[in-house]
Amino acid sequence: MRDELGASLGSRMSTALSIRERHGQDESWHAPAPPDAVVFPQTTEEIAQIVRGCARHRVPIVPFGVGTSLEGHVAALHGGVCIDLSRMNRVLEVNAEDMDARVQAGVTRKQLNAALKDTGLFFSVDPGADATLGGMAATRASGTTSVRYGTMRENVLGLTVVLADGRIVRTGNRARKSSTGYDLTRLFVGSEGTLGVITEVAVRLHGVSPAMSAAVCAFPTLKAAVDTVIETIQSAIPVARIELLDEVQVRGVNKYSKMDHAEAPTVFFEFHGTEAGVAEQAEMVGELARGHGAADFRWATRPEERNRLWQARHDAYYGGLSLRAGARGYVTDVCVPISHLAECVLATKRDIERSGLIAPIVGHVGDGNFHLVILVDPNDADEVARAASLNEQVVRRALAHGGTCSGEHGVGYGKMAFMSEEHGEALTLMHTIKFALDPHNLMNPGKIIAGSAPSAATAS
Amino acid sequence: MRDELGASLGSRMSTALSIRERHGQDESWHAPAPPDAVVFPQTTEEIAQIVRGCARHRVPIVPFGVGTSLEGHVAALHGGVCIDLSRMNRVLEVNAEDMDARVQAGVTRKQLNAALKDTGLFFSVDPGADATLGGMAATRASGTTSVRYGTMRENVLGLTVVLADGRIVRTGNRARKSSTGYDLTRLFVGSEGTLGVITEVAVRLHGVSPAMSAAVCAFPTLKAAVDTVIETIQSAIPVARIELLDEVQVRGVNKYSKMDHAEAPTVFFEFHGTEAGVAEQAEMVGELARGHGAADFRWATRPEERNRLWQARHDAYYGGLSLRAGARGYVTDVCVPISHLAECVLATKRDIERSGLIAPIVGHVGDGNFHLVILVDPNDADEVARAASLNEQVVRRALAHGGTCSGEHGVGYGKMAFMSEEHGEALTLMHTIKFALDPHNLMNPGKIIAGSAPSAATAS
Repeated sequence: MRDELGASLGSRMSTALSIRERHGQDESWHAPAPPDAVVFPQTTEEIAQIVRGCARHRVPIVPFGVGTSLEGHVAALHGGVCIDLSRMNRVLEVNAEDMDARVQAGVTRKQLNAALKDTGLFFSVDPGADATLGGMAATRASGTTSVRYGTMRENVLGLTVVLADGRIVRTGNRARKSSTGYDLTRLFVGSEGTLGVITEVAVRLHGVSPAMSAAVCAFPTLKAAVDTVIETIQSAIPVARIELLDEVQVRGVNKYSKMDHAEAPTVFFEFHGTEAGVAEQAEMVGELARGHGAADFRWATRPEERNRLWQARHDAYYGGLSLRAGARGYVTDVCVPISHLAECVLATKRDIERSGLIAPIVGHVGDGNFHLVILVDPNDADEVARAASLNEQVVRRALAHGGTCSGEHGVGYGKMAFMSEEHGEALTLMHTIKFALDPHNLMNPGKIIAGSAPSAATAS
Repeated sequence: MRDELGASLGSRMSTALSIRERHGQDESWHAPAPPDAVVFPQTTEEIAQIVRGCARHRVPIVPFGVGTSLEGHVAALHGGVCIDLSRMNRVLEVNAEDMDARVQAGVTRKQLNAALKDTGLFFSVDPGADATLGGMAATRASGTTSVRYGTMRENVLGLTVVLADGRIVRTGNRARKSSTGYDLTRLFVGSEGTLGVITEVAVRLHGVSPAMSAAVCAFPTLKAAVDTVIETIQSAIPVARIELLDEVQVRGVNKYSKMDHAEAPTVFFEFHGTEAGVAEQAEMVGELARGHGAADFRWATRPEERNRLWQARHDAYYGGLSLRAGARGYVTDVCVPISHLAECVLATKRDIERSGLIAPIVGHVGDGNFHLVILVDPNDADEVARAASLNEQVVRRALAHGGTCSGEHGVGYGKMAFMSEEHGEALTLMHTIKFALDPHNLMNPGKIIAGSAPSAATAS
């Protein structure tokens, strides 16, 4: 297998330990697992050929974007070949008139937005990292603007996918809607490489609003902050961003991003629309916030101020990590119905206090989604166990309130233990689909769906 | 089998010819096919029991809402048992704070909206007919407001489904987003009963806007009307409704709904928002329309005027039929990228003229979706053949422009001939999924996916 790959890819195949180690590790605390080889294909056809070879030799395949996932998605648990998509980084089409674009899977969100600079359009989904669109589609990613513009579920229009047997399928079309058969696009969005390798992504774009302004607002209590968020959403005010940071997270952001926000429970807002619309939205939200004892909005209207604010928000994970030297982040990711958000956030805050751990809270609270970045020394088994136990408490509470154990990070191998509890009988149906599409369990095995590993699981 | 059903359901099972005939026929011109028996279950459990019985005896199952589908979806092509869901018509939960609701699959869209009357919320998806939510989910329906609020794809949050072996699965959860595993909800939305029977539907609700107004605008030419629509969408003006009717369709609407609109290419608009927002939107669209030589807007601001206008739009199909006594409607349903809409609509108008048939054009043009209602005498083979040929022209053009053969009606057995052309290799993947979930091809066989019928295909 290795010789076969080397013969067709030449220097675009590597078995060097440093390369393999980098590709078996994401940004999480989860134990890494290097693949046996890493390949750097340039076309869908090349990927199809690699997959056909792997299928023939029963070698596992792990797709890799830039490795910013958070649940061990890229760990090669059963060895095999890592397909690094970074050289598939061409923007293939921008159709400004239809507000859509098609890119190779290795294009990152910032790269796409740079390519759109002069079109009056933007791609909205913005996870903290500058992830690839393939990776974002595979994990059903979202971000700070999803409250207004949707997640990858709403923003992916179609995909090119290499199936486990090397066949190439194209899903979706360029029309805004269709009722012709099974929604294969949505089946692959969120499938984390377990059903096929995503090689191209067609996405929806949105118009840049004529007016935008952002504001930071500190609250006297965490409850006041969350209640303001809930009322904003329930009033159907079309906020573009509405992000919660507790006082610990604000401290981390101040430290890492060199800002000077008051160390209090805080909400970052952004409003998009016409001049009049933005003013109207800001006034309505301001009134709700004052009703909960908030201080005045601190405005960021100029583009560079807004960019600095949101870059700081996107760096919140690193901001959290900065609070404890050498720590890794054990990141939680629950999402609950908005009516249960205050209860879940406040109970979580009490859980953190009882745990004795440092764990800033940050979240896309307009969607009901919030994270803890539990700061752990990965070599301290007791601390990791306490973090796991804290995570379990948070997850169990979310499930009890009709929520989910992952709002946007995905399952990887880090969240598999909660799948049965969350999905019940539906998990057996996912199992059926997985093994109908990938009977030899070669596509990112050990992620999402448990199953036996293939028998000859090395690339040698 | 019949005895078994009779024993458990008593009078809620019928083999009377009139009942069977009514259940094998939808509103289309497609040839009906009565089932062998019709059952009227009241609970998901009862449906699971019926499906287990059918699975044991290898008897096909056809789910039935109110029979308003348009591609022969309910025709029992291989006989079997029709599951009529009309007695599963309870609204189970309305969670106003989270803007969602859960209903049994037999609840109709008007029934749900009546139940929401005092909540300040509404369910947005509005196909012409007062369809059931189960049927709408199964066909991935949309309507006049989808341009703003989305189709069933965006508005279904979760489902309860009875699988081919009688297992009950619940998909989705109450959180606004989730990244935990395969998107089973979206897999069943649009599956037309071929993967399982939808028995409960959880849907997203939207807030009723504080201000709403509707307007009718006549244009000098069809091109002027379509170009105004395209510019409105490309300007990202958040119109709530933007519907095209050609002059033939306006004549039908005037006749059937007793209205007096000028017989010209016409666009019906609706604007939702705050008072200021609605005024702003209307002004922007008005300017675009005047730029294309439109007459003034004719406003319908009072609720009863608005309701009358949209009822007339929803009755457009019957309005079309009223233009020729005794005709049935051969309905087309393409959807294309908005940038290709003018070209496709105008070329279609020329196709109609050449065909010598009467075929009003009406459509949800903000989504790029438009219909012909080709008026045919179903007993005139030549006329039906000419209608089929016209449909083919319209579909082939849509596919050539990156569109789809069905924007919202679904495939049934009426559109199967176009599936391979539209989906290519992806159709074989749909086939794999179908037979993984329904190995004996018992779930609405002969729809969407071709496959051999089960061997013992009667309910006797």
